[in-house]
Amino acid sequence: MIKCGIVGATGYTGVELLRLLAPHPGVDIAVVTSRAEAGRAVAELFPNLRGVLDLGFTHPDEAPLTDCDVVFFATPNGTAMQQVPGLLAAGVRVIDLAADFRLRDPALWADWYGMPHACPELLAEAVYGLPELNRAAIREARLVANPGCYPTAASLGLLPALRAGLVDPARLVVDAKSGASGAGRKAQVATLLSEAGESFKAYAAGGHRHFPEIRQTLAEATGGPVGLTFVPHLLPMIRGIHVTIYGFATSPDLPFQATYEAAYRDEPFVDVMPPGSHPETRSCKGANWCRIAIHRPRETDTVVILSVIDNLVKGAAGQAVQNMNIMFGLDETAGLGGLALLP
Amino acid sequence: MIKCGIVGATGYTGVELLRLLAPHPGVDIAVVTSRAEAGRAVAELFPNLRGVLDLGFTHPDEAPLTDCDVVFFATPNGTAMQQVPGLLAAGVRVIDLAADFRLRDPALWADWYGMPHACPELLAEAVYGLPELNRAAIREARLVANPGCYPTAASLGLLPALRAGLVDPARLVVDAKSGASGAGRKAQVATLLSEAGESFKAYAAGGHRHFPEIRQTLAEATGGPVGLTFVPHLLPMIRGIHVTIYGFATSPDLPFQATYEAAYRDEPFVDVMPPGSHPETRSCKGANWCRIAIHRPRETDTVVILSVIDNLVKGAAGQAVQNMNIMFGLDETAGLGGLALLP
Amino acid sequence: MIKCGIVGATGYTGVELLRLLAPHPGVDIAVVTSRAEAGRAVAELFPNLRGVLDLGFTHPDEAPLTDCDVVFFATPNGTAMQQVPGLLAAGVRVIDLAADFRLRDPALWADWYGMPHACPELLAEAVYGLPELNRAAIREARLVANPGCYPTAASLGLLPALRAGLVDPARLVVDAKSGASGAGRKAQVATLLSEAGESFKAYAAGGHRHFPEIRQTLAEATGGPVGLTFVPHLLPMIRGIHVTIYGFATSPDLPFQATYEAAYRDEPFVDVMPPGSHPETRSCKGANWCRIAIHRPRETDTVVILSVIDNLVKGAAGQAVQNMNIMFGLDETAGLGGLALLP
Amino acid sequence: MIKCGIVGATGYTGVELLRLLAPHPGVDIAVVTSRAEAGRAVAELFPNLRGVLDLGFTHPDEAPLTDCDVVFFATPNGTAMQQVPGLLAAGVRVIDLAADFRLRDPALWADWYGMPHACPELLAEAVYGLPELNRAAIREARLVANPGCYPTAASLGLLPALRAGLVDPARLVVDAKSGASGAGRKAQVATLLSEAGESFKAYAAGGHRHFPEIRQTLAEATGGPVGLTFVPHLLPMIRGIHVTIYGFATSPDLPFQATYEAAYRDEPFVDVMPPGSHPETRSCKGANWCRIAIHRPRETDTVVILSVIDNLVKGAAGQAVQNMNIMFGLDETAGLGGLALLP
Repeated sequence: MIKCGIVGATGYTGVELLRLLAPHPGVDIAVVTSRAEAGRAVAELFPNLRGVLDLGFTHPDEAPLTDCDVVFFATPNGTAMQQVPGLLAAGVRVIDLAADFRLRDPALWADWYGMPHACPELLAEAVYGLPELNRAAIREARLVANPGCYPTAASLGLLPALRAGLVDPARLVVDAKSGASGAGRKAQVATLLSEAGESFKAYAAGGHRHFPEIRQTLAEATGGPVGLTFVPHLLPMIRGIHVTIYGFATSPDLPFQATYEAAYRDEPFVDVMPPGSHPETRSCKGANWCRIAIHRPRETDTVVILSVIDNLVKGAAGQAVQNMNIMFGLDETAGLGGLALLP
Repeated sequence: MIKCGIVGATGYTGVELLRLLAPHPGVDIAVVTSRAEAGRAVAELFPNLRGVLDLGFTHPDEAPLTDCDVVFFATPNGTAMQQVPGLLAAGVRVIDLAADFRLRDPALWADWYGMPHACPELLAEAVYGLPELNRAAIREARLVANPGCYPTAASLGLLPALRAGLVDPARLVVDAKSGASGAGRKAQVATLLSEAGESFKAYAAGGHRHFPEIRQTLAEATGGPVGLTFVPHLLPMIRGIHVTIYGFATSPDLPFQATYEAAYRDEPFVDVMPPGSHPETRSCKGANWCRIAIHRPRETDTVVILSVIDNLVKGAAGQAVQNMNIMFGLDETAGLGGLALLP
Repeated sequence: MIKCGIVGATGYTGVELLRLLAPHPGVDIAVVTSRAEAGRAVAELFPNLRGVLDLGFTHPDEAPLTDCDVVFFATPNGTAMQQVPGLLAAGVRVIDLAADFRLRDPALWADWYGMPHACPELLAEAVYGLPELNRAAIREARLVANPGCYPTAASLGLLPALRAGLVDPARLVVDAKSGASGAGRKAQVATLLSEAGESFKAYAAGGHRHFPEIRQTLAEATGGPVGLTFVPHLLPMIRGIHVTIYGFATSPDLPFQATYEAAYRDEPFVDVMPPGSHPETRSCKGANWCRIAIHRPRETDTVVILSVIDNLVKGAAGQAVQNMNIMFGLDETAGLGGLALLP
Repeated sequence: MIKCGIVGATGYTGVELLRLLAPHPGVDIAVVTSRAEAGRAVAELFPNLRGVLDLGFTHPDEAPLTDCDVVFFATPNGTAMQQVPGLLAAGVRVIDLAADFRLRDPALWADWYGMPHACPELLAEAVYGLPELNRAAIREARLVANPGCYPTAASLGLLPALRAGLVDPARLVVDAKSGASGAGRKAQVATLLSEAGESFKAYAAGGHRHFPEIRQTLAEATGGPVGLTFVPHLLPMIRGIHVTIYGFATSPDLPFQATYEAAYRDEPFVDVMPPGSHPETRSCKGANWCRIAIHRPRETDTVVILSVIDNLVKGAAGQAVQNMNIMFGLDETAGLGGLALLP
């Protein structure tokens, strides 16, 4: 059994990790930390765990994290980078669900995250945990930077077309929409049901932190600069991300569908849907799937790629479990066999 | 492996059965029937099954149901009673998720369901499939009448108090609320998102078919007549039932909490919450749990019992799987270990 | 033109007052106060007012409230009672949308609201602002206690039956459900979209502050003690209250429908629906109506009364405007002619 | 008083017309037709009208439409074109809320709407009823083609930039999102609350009927061809449209904000928000406003224009009333002063 620790499990990615890891056949949840909730039963905070997980929150200062095989960070940005060097030194492998290790360039990171990076020397070593892109490196990694939710959906949607040269890399548009759980479990007016319900809006249209992350992934894949516009929006629902990607086709009659089917043929969690499909976010609700469909709109020279995930599963905790499975040589789908809740 | 057939799997209880049975370790889904969708892939209708269930709908006339060990009916009321006698004669065990075998009195059934019963001789044999009430009988049953969604939540909420004589059986009020999936997957104006969203209403306040079902269960448990008022309401959400039960305590200072904890101590899917709790329907979303809390409001002689389930799981398909597990000697929780999706 | 002041207009009852008063033909909004938002444009906080209301928040210490004809308090409980004596002394009439003046008994108020009352001598003078009950007194009132949202729906639903002696006053059950806007516009986890969306629960089942308010209104109307159980619930939607009232009929075949139709025949905002109706909360969304329907369920001795309002309109700001209209001799429906938003 | 007739008032644009016209000071609703509901009280179908509109549905064959000053068609596409020639001949002015008269080219219309046009000779005369574009022509029009909901939001968002030459007309992307009321009030599975709730998807990504309509408006405004990609999406909410428009700026440092503020300075219903704003659909819920904000994302050469409306108001019935006001010389804002419902 793999001994797991979870740092900062009072947010939505944390409770989602618990939902997936509690029944996982190869895992023992050894310790769950929270500064604010230390001493309280985890199931008191998250009643879906009642009767299943009999564990309390441990104060971070008293948590035996170095006894773990792997530690997940489900913390705000800037926390993991304080503790990761020590854990790696103690031989613990780390999966960071926050953004601390996602960008390779410490200056870029500092610019977008508003603080200097605490351990820039680890940025080169950290493996960007998108299994479809980096499976071999994940297997050997000490430190995995679990991708952001939007970047997961956008990158899986764009990589095959870019690598095959089917779209102009200079003029990409990613219009992204996320459920409110992406904004986290914190007390704030903007995501109250009475504020975010029955309404829809863009946010951070002038620049969002996932923009440099997506651009980095695409640029590395194409080996050149990428012109990207990325605008996120807030959906009046809890779970799910839908990205609508617009690209300009490099020539008429390109084999988009076949390229995608070939790219993802052996992937356990990427579903290329038949031509003409419109994936619904609910087809992934609670499940680790990404579903993709490709359209060539009438009387245009564009391609439209639709990509959906559950932001808390393939966009966060599920992908983290997938990475853990790869790192420890388990079946990649272990603990991830649950089907999407529909309706 | 238990060979299963599902009749009428194009509705919500049908797809929920598929969601639970597809990854069930002891089950082989042999045949899924639909008159309207015969020949179509099941996963085309329900995209959450894509990549997991590779099966098409079979026309009922061509479905080899008699080769199954068990057949689930997820059909409209009045369908199962046409086919059940033949299946039983062929040695197939049956779990009916509709209402055909829930009432013992054929005249009462005809009155509430608006048609004569096709096989009244089976009503005495049919076992009401509430495991917490009838576990032993379910084990031996050829024919299980899976309880209605409201009756499951209401009966689990009321039975301990009634059996212990803690509340007046003559004056019970059950105020029940259900998500819209309870109304089924059929084209109708009343449950459009634009009609049922952001609104709330009672329905069938003058009399609902689950009223005689609840009353029968309570009367059998108490051995006497029961005075019950039952009003269902439609919630602007998809899944979940909450019943708020009002009873008049038979004397002051009765041990409600202890009575409920004792009654459900060994039940794998009933959770008696601590005093002062308010169960949320989402704590059961997608899971087979029933969570119950008991309150004694200030300055009253009443008891308020709160009981929540997922109408499609413990209120339908999950309970059906639980019954199947019992009938075939499997671990009662097999295939039902998924935790509620929260948030 | 009536000069109005609004104290504490950053919450939902405040912005609803602004929505109704800004286009009101007989009103001039003179001053809107907020300690936290002083100096900011009101329309910056509430974009529905952009282009319509060109006014900023004034700091309470600098607000010329004594120049107003009427001041509305849309503040947390315990604030109005600090300022009302001074305003009344200055000849300003007051409508308090909070609970400070709703209970006549200062000891009861202190018990339920957890603080001593600051001006108990005004409790006898304050008029409970339910026009259907106290229209004449409201006309002359210096100080109107605007009713709570649940009490409005419950009292309008129960008063005709109680006054006519049709139900047993000793055994009343009010099962109440409210949209999340009733919980206010404050940063808290419990009413985040991801927490309160797609879920349903009771709260304060052991005792809610609207319980003594409803009981007081009913007891005064009947002239004797009332046995009441009241349980509120949180709906996964923004606006609307539905109360389901259960009473035991004092004899068979009582003229419930005719009694209600007679009681409300001349009321501009109470709609007694035809027998068999199920009022939907959306039929009042944004409008000042209360819609009521009465049912006698099959095979019971109970009556079920369904009563719906918009908690922010007839349950708060709309009723306050109705009270103002009465107090100042305007047409009672002035500014309240907007129809419910459906769908 | 203007005598109005409404043809086909059982859908959402119909009931919205009734909500706006019933309290309109200059209008008398003379006749409301419905084939299916003839003889039934309108308020029975739409309970928000109870107590306000005392009128029944008239069978189309018996409706005295030629006595009206203006007739609104709130019918499915293809109906108005059958009746409009007769009404015009009788001197009745017509506002068609369907698509029958929106495209100038009958061949294009036939291609996208799947039927030949019944009166192509009227297409040249019909005025496209976008007041911000065609106010003078609307004033004189006999026949107004009320714009589609998406085209209203998209055209208002794009026209100033295109006319001023600020964006490349060859590479426009309009990513549009609509609430479910846009799909109408018809019995169908796809827009059930349990299907469309808590989910999000694109639809008609290969080509939607509003595509040629938007393209025609933009092409006429620029006097040249336009390269447009348009993808609509379904939001899990009732009302509201948000379009996110992506354009490539024709040079750096263009005065987008000033251009838009100048273009809409005198418009009563278009609100250009301050730089950095993100309009929410709810800021227009129930109101006739269009709110627009412009962004220049970091490190890109694109401009992002955000435009929101209520699809049933500025996107349908409200714009129709605005057109009527213009046609009959009323104050353009008459009957349209209601503020958006927030929250």
